[in-house]
Amino acid sequence: MSNPLTDPTSDPTSGSGSGSGSGSGKSSGVRAGSASGSPAGSPRTSPGVSPGGGDHLDISRRRLLGTVGAAGAAGLVIGAAGGAGIAAAVSEDGSAAGAAGPGALTSVGATQVAFHGRHQPGITTPLQSRGHLVAFDLAPGAGRKEAAALLRRWSATARTLMAGKAPAGDTGIALDAGPSSLTVTFGFGRTFFDRTGLASRRPSQLDPLPAFSSDAVDPKRSEGDLWVQIGADDALVAFHALRALQKDAGDAARVRWQMNGFNRSAGATARPTTARNLMGQVDGTNNPKPTDPDFDRRIFVPAGAAGAQEWMAGGSYAVVRRIRMLLDDWDQLSQEGQERVIGRRKADGAPLSGGSETTPLDLNKTGPDGKLLVPDNAHARISAPEQNGGAAMLRRPFSFHDGIGADGTPDAGLLFVCWQADPLRGFVPVQRKLDRGDALSKFVRHESSGLFAVPGGAPEGEYVGQRLLEA
Amino acid sequence: MSNPLTDPTSDPTSGSGSGSGSGSGKSSGVRAGSASGSPAGSPRTSPGVSPGGGDHLDISRRRLLGTVGAAGAAGLVIGAAGGAGIAAAVSEDGSAAGAAGPGALTSVGATQVAFHGRHQPGITTPLQSRGHLVAFDLAPGAGRKEAAALLRRWSATARTLMAGKAPAGDTGIALDAGPSSLTVTFGFGRTFFDRTGLASRRPSQLDPLPAFSSDAVDPKRSEGDLWVQIGADDALVAFHALRALQKDAGDAARVRWQMNGFNRSAGATARPTTARNLMGQVDGTNNPKPTDPDFDRRIFVPAGAAGAQEWMAGGSYAVVRRIRMLLDDWDQLSQEGQERVIGRRKADGAPLSGGSETTPLDLNKTGPDGKLLVPDNAHARISAPEQNGGAAMLRRPFSFHDGIGADGTPDAGLLFVCWQADPLRGFVPVQRKLDRGDALSKFVRHESSGLFAVPGGAPEGEYVGQRLLEA
Repeated sequence: MSNPLTDPTSDPTSGSGSGSGSGSGKSSGVRAGSASGSPAGSPRTSPGVSPGGGDHLDISRRRLLGTVGAAGAAGLVIGAAGGAGIAAAVSEDGSAAGAAGPGALTSVGATQVAFHGRHQPGITTPLQSRGHLVAFDLAPGAGRKEAAALLRRWSATARTLMAGKAPAGDTGIALDAGPSSLTVTFGFGRTFFDRTGLASRRPSQLDPLPAFSSDAVDPKRSEGDLWVQIGADDALVAFHALRALQKDAGDAARVRWQMNGFNRSAGATARPTTARNLMGQVDGTNNPKPTDPDFDRRIFVPAGAAGAQEWMAGGSYAVVRRIRMLLDDWDQLSQEGQERVIGRRKADGAPLSGGSETTPLDLNKTGPDGKLLVPDNAHARISAPEQNGGAAMLRRPFSFHDGIGADGTPDAGLLFVCWQADPLRGFVPVQRKLDRGDALSKFVRHESSGLFAVPGGAPEGEYVGQRLLEA
Repeated sequence: MSNPLTDPTSDPTSGSGSGSGSGSGKSSGVRAGSASGSPAGSPRTSPGVSPGGGDHLDISRRRLLGTVGAAGAAGLVIGAAGGAGIAAAVSEDGSAAGAAGPGALTSVGATQVAFHGRHQPGITTPLQSRGHLVAFDLAPGAGRKEAAALLRRWSATARTLMAGKAPAGDTGIALDAGPSSLTVTFGFGRTFFDRTGLASRRPSQLDPLPAFSSDAVDPKRSEGDLWVQIGADDALVAFHALRALQKDAGDAARVRWQMNGFNRSAGATARPTTARNLMGQVDGTNNPKPTDPDFDRRIFVPAGAAGAQEWMAGGSYAVVRRIRMLLDDWDQLSQEGQERVIGRRKADGAPLSGGSETTPLDLNKTGPDGKLLVPDNAHARISAPEQNGGAAMLRRPFSFHDGIGADGTPDAGLLFVCWQADPLRGFVPVQRKLDRGDALSKFVRHESSGLFAVPGGAPEGEYVGQRLLEA
C-alpha cells in the first residue's frame, strides 16, 4: 500500500455515493488554505477592517472565509485574478441574484478547508461557530503500532469529512450539508510518549506547565494522550465528525474528556469584528496576525531549530484550558468597573488610553487625576506582549455554556485554546504574570488544563504524526 | 402608566445607544411575521421545494428566513412587489457585489421576527440553529402580582432583544450582532395556577400527561411553573437572551432546569431540506404545514371554543421532552435495519413504500416476499396521523449534545418540542401508540417531560399572559 491514507476501512473513495457532497463545483473549487488568510482572533474580517495587509488572493480567501454573504464573497472573487475556481463554486448564488436555484450552497456550507498542508488546519483557520474538544487515552495494551494505525484512520476520516464526503459506514448525520469549514486538528499529550515507547522523542516543550496559584484544575478533565479539536460552521457537521472520530478510535483509545464550544455565527455581525466572549468583552484584539513578519516564528515550530524535535517542524503547541467565568459576580460590576478590570472599552474594545480597537495601549498615559488610564492591574496591561518580553501566542478559543447549576449560576466561560511555537515563550510567562496580579482573575476559574504537541500538517499521502510514529 | 410594557426597569427605549442595532434599515425593514411563512419542520426552505403555496410576499419572507446568502435574498426581494423595506435592509451587500462594505449584515444576522402578533413567535418560526429551554419556579411567597410584573418585564425584554436592541444594564454579549431571528416564547405550567390563585382558570389541557411505560422521567428536569423557549441563529445572541431573562426573574422566580439545543446552521445545506436529527434521519416530514386548511385549528386554540379558557385564544400547548438517543446501539444496526425501524429511507426520507420524501406512506404495500414494505412496528407507520384518528402536532425540536459520559456514550438526542391546540388530540394519542409498539423505542429514552400552556401573542401595548394575569 503505497499511500498510507488509503486504509481499507476508511478509504475516502469508498464512501457512500449519497454522501454530503452536493453542488458540483464545490469540492474542487472552494478550497481555502489554512496557512494563510484570516488571523484566528479576528475571524470575521472583511478587507476594509483587516489588520495587516495581504495580496489580492489573500484578501479573496479571507473574504471567503469571513462572514459576508454569498453576494459579497462571489462578487469579490469574480473580480479577483486567480479566483476562478472559487467563483465557480459560489456563483450559482452570486451570479444570478433572484434566480438562485435550490442546488446552491451558501458560503457557510460550501467553504472547505484543506486537510493537507504545511500546518494542520484549525490553527489559523477563522473561528468556526461550533467546536468540540476531545481528549483520548490509549487503551491498556495499545502502543506505538496501534497509535500509528489510529492516526492513519483519523487522518483519512478527517480528510474525507473536511472534503464534505461521507466515510464508509457513515451515520448520515451530516448528509445534505456541505463541509461548512470543518477542521480537525490532532495533538499528542505528554503521556503519549511513554505509552508508545517514544519518550526519547518527546519535546521538552511538553514538560508540565507550572502550577498557577489561581488554578482549580480537575485532572479528569485535563491532559490526555491524544487531543482532537473539531470546528465547523454547522453543529451537525461538527457532531458528525466527533462521532466518526470516536468510532475510529475503536479499541485503541477511549475518550478521557470532551467539551463543546461555540462562537458567533457567520453573518451575525454587521461589521466583521474581533470575537466577543461571554463577559461581553471584545476578545482577541492583540492576537498576532498571520501577516506579522514574526508570526510564523512565534506560532509554528521551525524546521531544524536547535533543540526542537524534527518531527514537530511546522507544528505548534496548544494550551487548552476550560476557564469558567463567574458571570454573576462580573455582572455586578458597573460597565466602568468592568472596563477598568480589562483596560479596554466594552463597546468597541478600544484601550482606555484612547483610540480605537487597534490603537496600541498607552501604558503610561494618565488622566486628569494623575492616575493611569489603563490601571496597574488591568488584564490588557498585564497580558500585553511588551510587559512579557514579547511573549505572544495565538488565542483561538470557543465559548462554552453547559447549563445553569442548582445555585442558578451558569456553567459558562471560555474554552481557551492558544497556539505557540514554545509554551515557555507564549502561555507560561503571560499566565505567570496574570496569576500574580490580574484584576480579572477573581472573575474566572481555570477548571482544566492540557498541553499538546500538534505536529505539522500531513503532506499528500501521509497522515498526521507519521514522522513521529514511523521514523 | 398606560402601556404596561414601558416598565422603567426595562424600557426598550432606554437601552444603550451603542446597542447591537447597526445597519440603519434593519430594524424597521426586516420584520418577518411569525404566523406565516415557513413551516417549522422544514425551515430551510426555498421557493422551489417549498411544501405548500403562499403568495409572492410569503415567498419572499420565507426566502429571507431561509438559508440563501445575501445575494439570493436581496435579489429575490428586489424583484418582489412589496419587499422594498426588506431590500433596503440587505441591499448593501446584494446591490454592489464586490464592493460590499463592512456595514452590511447578512440575512443570518439581520432577520428579525416580530414580538407582537396573534401567536407568540417561536412556534411557526423556522427552526433556529441555537436554542435554550428553561423552566422557572416562582419563588416562595411570589404570587399573582409578582408573576404579572415578571411577565411584563420579560415581554419588554423579549421585544427589545428581538428587535436587535440592548436592554437597560445590558451585559453586552450580543453587541455587534443583529437580532439573528431571535424568538422568545413564554408558557405556564400546571403548577403555576395554584401558586398564583388562578386554579379556576387552569385549562383542562394542562392535566398531567398519562404515564408511558417507556418513560424514565427525572422530575427535577421536568415541568415547572414557567417555561421559556429561546431560539436564535447565533449562539451569543441566544445566550445573551437567556442571561437577560434570568436576570429579569430577579427574586420572583428561580431556574428549575435549563437545556441547550441546536439545529443546522442557515446555509449549511444545499437543498433546503427537512431537518435531520442525530440518528441521521430526516425528521419532521409529516409535520402539518401552515398552508394546510386545518393547520390553525390543529395547532392554535381558537377564540370562543367550547371548554377553552378565553385567555388561551391564539395560544398553543407545548409538550417538551428530553429524548436521549442511544446512539451507540443505533449505530450498530445496518442502514437497512435503521430504515426498517423508521419506515423511511435514510438518504432522503422517502417512505419504504416508495416515492420521495413527500410521498404519502402506502401502509398496505407489500414486497415480493409478501411482507409489508413499511413494517408493522415502524415509527413512521405508528405515528402516522391516519393511524391515530388524525391526531397531529407540529414538531419543532432542537438536537442536544451535552458531552460524552464516563462510559464513552454521548449524552445526546432530541429536545422534542411539539405544539398543538390540545395535547389529547396531538401528543398523547400518538405517544400512547408509540409506547406500545414502536420499533424506535428501544433506541430512545424519554428523560424529562413538561407540558405548558403558551398563550397567544401579545398585541401592541400588552404583555404575554396579561389576559390571564390581569383579567
